[in-house]
Amino acid sequence: MNLKEEALKLHKENKGKLATKSKVEVKTKEDLSLVYTPGVAEVCKEIAANPKSVYDYTMKANSVAVVTDGSAVLGLGNIGAEASMPVMEGKCVLFKELADIDAFPICIKNQNDDEIINLVKNIAPVFGGINLEDIKAPRCFKIEEELLNIGIPVMHDDQHGTAIVVLAALINATKVVGKKIEDLKIVFNGAGAAGTAVAKLLLCLDVDQTICRKVKEIILCDSKGIIYDGREDLNEFKQRMSKITNPNNKEGTLKDALEGADVFIGVSKGDLLTADDLKVMNKDAIIFAMANPVPEIMPDEAEKVATIVGTGRSDFKNQINNSLAFPGVFRGALDAKATKINNEMKIAAAEAIASCVEPTKDNILPYTLDKNVVTKVAEAVAKMAKETGVCR
Amino acid sequence: MNLKEEALKLHKENKGKLATKSKVEVKTKEDLSLVYTPGVAEVCKEIAANPKSVYDYTMKANSVAVVTDGSAVLGLGNIGAEASMPVMEGKCVLFKELADIDAFPICIKNQNDDEIINLVKNIAPVFGGINLEDIKAPRCFKIEEELLNIGIPVMHDDQHGTAIVVLAALINATKVVGKKIEDLKIVFNGAGAAGTAVAKLLLCLDVDQTICRKVKEIILCDSKGIIYDGREDLNEFKQRMSKITNPNNKEGTLKDALEGADVFIGVSKGDLLTADDLKVMNKDAIIFAMANPVPEIMPDEAEKVATIVGTGRSDFKNQINNSLAFPGVFRGALDAKATKINNEMKIAAAEAIASCVEPTKDNILPYTLDKNVVTKVAEAVAKMAKETGVCR
Repeated sequence: MNLKEEALKLHKENKGKLATKSKVEVKTKEDLSLVYTPGVAEVCKEIAANPKSVYDYTMKANSVAVVTDGSAVLGLGNIGAEASMPVMEGKCVLFKELADIDAFPICIKNQNDDEIINLVKNIAPVFGGINLEDIKAPRCFKIEEELLNIGIPVMHDDQHGTAIVVLAALINATKVVGKKIEDLKIVFNGAGAAGTAVAKLLLCLDVDQTICRKVKEIILCDSKGIIYDGREDLNEFKQRMSKITNPNNKEGTLKDALEGADVFIGVSKGDLLTADDLKVMNKDAIIFAMANPVPEIMPDEAEKVATIVGTGRSDFKNQINNSLAFPGVFRGALDAKATKINNEMKIAAAEAIASCVEPTKDNILPYTLDKNVVTKVAEAVAKMAKETGVCR
Repeated sequence: MNLKEEALKLHKENKGKLATKSKVEVKTKEDLSLVYTPGVAEVCKEIAANPKSVYDYTMKANSVAVVTDGSAVLGLGNIGAEASMPVMEGKCVLFKELADIDAFPICIKNQNDDEIINLVKNIAPVFGGINLEDIKAPRCFKIEEELLNIGIPVMHDDQHGTAIVVLAALINATKVVGKKIEDLKIVFNGAGAAGTAVAKLLLCLDVDQTICRKVKEIILCDSKGIIYDGREDLNEFKQRMSKITNPNNKEGTLKDALEGADVFIGVSKGDLLTADDLKVMNKDAIIFAMANPVPEIMPDEAEKVATIVGTGRSDFKNQINNSLAFPGVFRGALDAKATKINNEMKIAAAEAIASCVEPTKDNILPYTLDKNVVTKVAEAVAKMAKETGVCR
């Protein structure tokens, strides 16, 4: 059986992947009188009198909504709420299996930004955190921004999960090749959700005293080439990025941008580059070709020139995969009673992930299903949440 | 330890009552490639191409949202979304334990009808059914009405769950005292969600050829007395009820209404009646005093005059409790792939519940946690859904 047949079979036989489970017994009338009426009324009254105790007496302290509008699902595009379900259920399963978090899919049949924002605010009482997922850029930026102060951690994983894992990969890759992050010139292809968030984290906006604050130069490219201040076809969010990247305001194509670069980060379309194109990069080039399913350049081709090559795929070495970040990040945020996930917490997560392996050029990141990673990331994130004072 | 202390302890020790659970293993990279990327993309594409297959490949076929705005929680009133959580989680636990349905609480921090309606429509892709819960009358009527045609079964349990169980109780109570439902004169105290729905089901609006269609006379009372056509302080929904009940357009108090009545159904405030008040009722009176936690009249007092007495409480005989209905009703609706829950299905559920016991005056209904009830109700509801042609 091929992958498609196996995946369809697994989903059909199990009717999806997620179920609910009772944490308490309901066998006798006495059980029922505690779990449900009349005893439950006492718990309701306690929460009504002391709203914060909802975290003590309900599932809220351990629950996360995986919220999407189905507008940018994997590489499949705008396939809508129903068709996004397998991804969101899968994500909830990973939350449970890796971090013992009770996550539930909320797939929204509506792609109006304000309605999505309101919906998330309205269902927030049930959840300890919100994982936004597969919402198309630039809409995802506004939606996340408007939800950052609702009192529970909200994170758009396509942005920040990716940013954390790429930073972790970069910490270890530079260690292997003996470069410093602050000396790097980094070129991105892709200025959507992932590209923007990775660039912002590497520039450490709003963060003091961190490992990455002095990245020397970042150039973002989109399908039309280098993003520079003054380019006329930029949307609001790319305009903002044009002000904080590309310090020499270079113009041109992706290939122009690669000249003298140390790192290439691809988070858009695949099959773009050849080994020849990489020859203009600096010695010991680092290539993270993360387009899915086809990377920007295949690893065997990239390795003709580059020293370290990573992709998003599990069938090549150096897989750069969000699953290394989100379970531990939310576990740590929930454990610390954090009200948000700030950049310091993201960087702490990246450093924790990086610390899980002694890196070599073929092994810059730990194994995706390693529960030790979740534990380390959660501890680091929780510690940083407390240090930066974002806990309730 | 008293009930309050025990209930608080149970909820605190378990941090609520509901959790999620994976139905599939995620131990190896191969598992991950089927449950999540890249295999999951094939399942997404299948659903995008054939939207109905969302029922085959995801949890939707077995999931129910328990939706509230916290506006009328138990007898506690408008305590809001957070404080309603223990009830909604409890309900989800009962769905799971009694009917193996994966239910999840959606507690909405918003009491605007249109926003609630939109929200439910927007999250519907995830769910195979919607259980509306503890939404205040008359708002619950409009909200439910607007959701009846969204393609999945929607039921406001405070209305229809109560109606089903009361009808079941009445079928067996009349059997015990040797009266026919069609000859009964029934007086209600309470014309909110429960009272209205019970009355409507007993009048069998829109239903042909059923056991209950000829109930002779129903009189509804609210806190101001008998509801009659022309009473000036009636809201839209009570006005509608005034046209279809009280055929002689009687005016007066609850006590006036009881004259010559066979059945009293209390679904509002407790501690209203004495044995003396019941003396004007017909012989072999049936009293369902379901106000919680204090019944309209205590059973020992009522039994001085009445033949059959039921309450909503588990510590008295003849408990009339929604838990007998909703698990089997939704199980049957999901199993039959029903797109709605019509009156015929509700009546079939009531008859199935009634059929689970050989009734005596002290035992008109089966035990709340009897799984046999769920099975019988589910079968009857599914059969009726198919017969009435409301399946997808």
